[in-house]
Amino acid sequence: MVWKNFDSLDAYKKLGELAPVDVKTAMAGENGAKRVAEYQVPMSNGMVYSYAAKQVDDELLAALQGLADEAELTEKYAALYNGEVINTGEKRLVLHQLCRGQLGNDVIKDGVNKREFYVAQQNRIAEFAGKVHRGEIVNENGEKYTTVVQIGIGGSDLGPRALYLSLENWARANGTLKMEARFISNVDPDDASAVLATVDIAHAIFIVVSKSGTTLETLTNETFVKNAIKEAGCDPSKHMAAVTSETSPLAGNPEYLDSFYMDDYIGGRYSSSSAVGGAVLSLAFGPEVFARFLDGAAAEDALAKNADIKKNPAMLDALIGVYERNFLGYGMTAILPYSQALSRFPAHLQQADMESNGKSVNRYGEPVNYVTGPVIFGEPGTNGQHSFYQLLHQGTNIVPLQFVGFRKNQMNNDLDIQGSTSQQKLSANVAAQIMAFACGKDDENSNKYFAGERPSSIIIGKQLTPEALGALLAHFENKVMFQGFIWNLNSFDQEGVQLGKLLAKRVLAHETDGALRAFADIFEI
Amino acid sequence: MVWKNFDSLDAYKKLGELAPVDVKTAMAGENGAKRVAEYQVPMSNGMVYSYAAKQVDDELLAALQGLADEAELTEKYAALYNGEVINTGEKRLVLHQLCRGQLGNDVIKDGVNKREFYVAQQNRIAEFAGKVHRGEIVNENGEKYTTVVQIGIGGSDLGPRALYLSLENWARANGTLKMEARFISNVDPDDASAVLATVDIAHAIFIVVSKSGTTLETLTNETFVKNAIKEAGCDPSKHMAAVTSETSPLAGNPEYLDSFYMDDYIGGRYSSSSAVGGAVLSLAFGPEVFARFLDGAAAEDALAKNADIKKNPAMLDALIGVYERNFLGYGMTAILPYSQALSRFPAHLQQADMESNGKSVNRYGEPVNYVTGPVIFGEPGTNGQHSFYQLLHQGTNIVPLQFVGFRKNQMNNDLDIQGSTSQQKLSANVAAQIMAFACGKDDENSNKYFAGERPSSIIIGKQLTPEALGALLAHFENKVMFQGFIWNLNSFDQEGVQLGKLLAKRVLAHETDGALRAFADIFEI
Repeated sequence: MVWKNFDSLDAYKKLGELAPVDVKTAMAGENGAKRVAEYQVPMSNGMVYSYAAKQVDDELLAALQGLADEAELTEKYAALYNGEVINTGEKRLVLHQLCRGQLGNDVIKDGVNKREFYVAQQNRIAEFAGKVHRGEIVNENGEKYTTVVQIGIGGSDLGPRALYLSLENWARANGTLKMEARFISNVDPDDASAVLATVDIAHAIFIVVSKSGTTLETLTNETFVKNAIKEAGCDPSKHMAAVTSETSPLAGNPEYLDSFYMDDYIGGRYSSSSAVGGAVLSLAFGPEVFARFLDGAAAEDALAKNADIKKNPAMLDALIGVYERNFLGYGMTAILPYSQALSRFPAHLQQADMESNGKSVNRYGEPVNYVTGPVIFGEPGTNGQHSFYQLLHQGTNIVPLQFVGFRKNQMNNDLDIQGSTSQQKLSANVAAQIMAFACGKDDENSNKYFAGERPSSIIIGKQLTPEALGALLAHFENKVMFQGFIWNLNSFDQEGVQLGKLLAKRVLAHETDGALRAFADIFEI
Repeated sequence: MVWKNFDSLDAYKKLGELAPVDVKTAMAGENGAKRVAEYQVPMSNGMVYSYAAKQVDDELLAALQGLADEAELTEKYAALYNGEVINTGEKRLVLHQLCRGQLGNDVIKDGVNKREFYVAQQNRIAEFAGKVHRGEIVNENGEKYTTVVQIGIGGSDLGPRALYLSLENWARANGTLKMEARFISNVDPDDASAVLATVDIAHAIFIVVSKSGTTLETLTNETFVKNAIKEAGCDPSKHMAAVTSETSPLAGNPEYLDSFYMDDYIGGRYSSSSAVGGAVLSLAFGPEVFARFLDGAAAEDALAKNADIKKNPAMLDALIGVYERNFLGYGMTAILPYSQALSRFPAHLQQADMESNGKSVNRYGEPVNYVTGPVIFGEPGTNGQHSFYQLLHQGTNIVPLQFVGFRKNQMNNDLDIQGSTSQQKLSANVAAQIMAFACGKDDENSNKYFAGERPSSIIIGKQLTPEALGALLAHFENKVMFQGFIWNLNSFDQEGVQLGKLLAKRVLAHETDGALRAFADIFEI
């Protein structure tokens, strides 16, 4: 297995010689219907990845398969799940998939079977959550807890928050919403104050989540919250728990109700499958629901082992994205879920993708001569249609689109209004958008002219269940992983976040001059 | 006054001949401090717009002033506020600023003084809100209302929602949170179901907001909500109000508690200052707070009349943005408010900007040969620092950044932890980021190397009050307006949203074939 720069591969040259497909023509008429039938790949849990509206044809797909083979994508994935040091910068294994299932060999590190370690933490969390739900762990007055509040930022916030919101209403409809969850992330004191103003502190468990145990925002907010707990006349040790690594300053603190562990092999933005997501989601929905989420992700992880891109939706998605990025020059990707429950899923993927592949040096620290990770943004449909879709349809730049949709909504309430249900209206809209973007519309009035030729893919599932959500998360995580392999990046460190932290510390220590001092003065710091 | 394509102007040629400034050098050392002091423009309400970290110098600024003059930006603004038909596509005036104050001549249309019309609606809303707050308008059981729920999408949702969230905690801290507000927007039935599951329907007023009175999502959700009101044993006519235009099918319906009006001269994405924002915000915070918001916006609108770009922050911001877009090739702009209260403000600006200037034809319907509106995205700091900032610092594309920060937080709660308050930590971080992006950092380890040279601006205010929020909104609205003038676009229509709606209707009517029918089949519609 060799790690090579993308532009040194034969497949790179080959791809540069191929022209993109005219989607407007390809998707028109009955040929379009055939294309929809053919250009789709089954995902786990009855979902499907459709790339019919992408600018590819059989010849391009063959070249992408050639790229997958030459870049040894499945071999690199195997190296990762078998426990090689894939995060070369920080000299760490990359094991988030191992939280969901074992894809290869036992991974033993420092004498510990890591799969057993992650499962043990899941079991400890399940036991804790069960006791909380059954009223065996209670507050200082012997009363049950009703709310769980996660204190964390970045990976300890965006993923768990997006997942909670994705399943909150599903759980409500299915009678498994055990506790409401809230989130405190920002160092802005108004974030904590606002949550605390609307939470019943006496019946709340606050989970402090920081792998290193040194995150400025989280430690600050922990102190902030502890203070509020005391002011409410409660005992912090009856209201706080921790998720951290075993070596962190937060670990084993007897003043917490309990502590649950992850390790250095779980990157922050990939930590939703670990105790970071596990604690809050198991408390909110019950450990069974979290286990179903993990099962969904594990099934998708297994699909990602296929060397055949037509059986590996994450790899195919990754390859098409790379083609769009490096050969068609598109700098962004919009994530557009047609499901209000996924309202914060794009924000999570924004982190997962941009923090992983927003790099300019390869895994050996050498500058690369090609563009890497795109900017990711998105909002749920149909809301986005009434907002930024104008630019997507008629703007001067093309933005590839990644739709997600479901046949069935999560809650049991829907109405037939003017001949169709709301869910049908929602689904009709996403189907319509794919075609509007692909084929456009001629019009004598150039203001009403749609050029089309704007590529999109869509993932379609039956319903946004815990399994489907796990599959979705794993799909995008694995897509980002494969793209990082192709670009020859280390997708698992984030050195780009360090400089700002360092300078902020200097400002607070009054160790600055020049423009930084001048800005600090305007802020009266 | 002449409307010309950007690339036909002398200033376009001139700008193309100038090289951008090396920000890394310009912002270094004591020269950087001087630059911070000089390169800032006062805004209203004690705020300031700093462009010290932008890639401009005096020569470039002179060229931008030349562009402003040659493109007749202030003349075009005057034409707009004096009531010319600026929205040429739809043959409409553009009067959202007139909701906040009168900048020029009386605007009389169809015999109506439009300023008087907008003020009359504000007064009607103030009276209605006062009666609700005082318990003079009550539910069927003679009880006071506690919650207001806005039913609207796009401009009827994103702006009002962002503004509500921006002031919710300020109002809580200042004792003016009269009613909590919630929002239903998506046609996804789970959106309405989720809100209804957590709202006390018997004490809620639902405001149906649609200018045309024909918006699919909003009418569907109205029926959905009415059904829920009846199921709760309540009388819909005691729980619903409307905001619409006087000619819409929703107008004057006796089954509403009341109806408030806007008109065709208020574009959806610019409607927060009209009854669309006025009703929900006056009910939530009291009409006095909404009036303060309008005053803040009016003050900023007045500043935008200055022909001197050093006295016109919105125009200067617009000009620098155009320079970055058309001459430096940057395709995106990130909006990064260091205030959790502004969490949805970027989503609103995403609509305001991308729906206005995401166009490929000029105001005469002729294709333009230059790029227009950028993609807008953003999240609050410090959250974004732990997410997508990695790509912003070290990715292969440069994204111009638009920071916002305040000296003081909104709520009265803050703690000194390790020598600084949370607010100080927040401010220190945004100051640090500007410098990290501008100047970067050398490092032997290329993985820890920051190239710098990444331009940003920042708006700094004392506190996010109603006036400051109004000023912020007006700043960005006017920035988008000036950019539309420079690009010679009609920024006030949105033909790009029509095709998708049309095709969705066909799907629901089963009038489709080919690929669209194939997708509809997968969705089982």
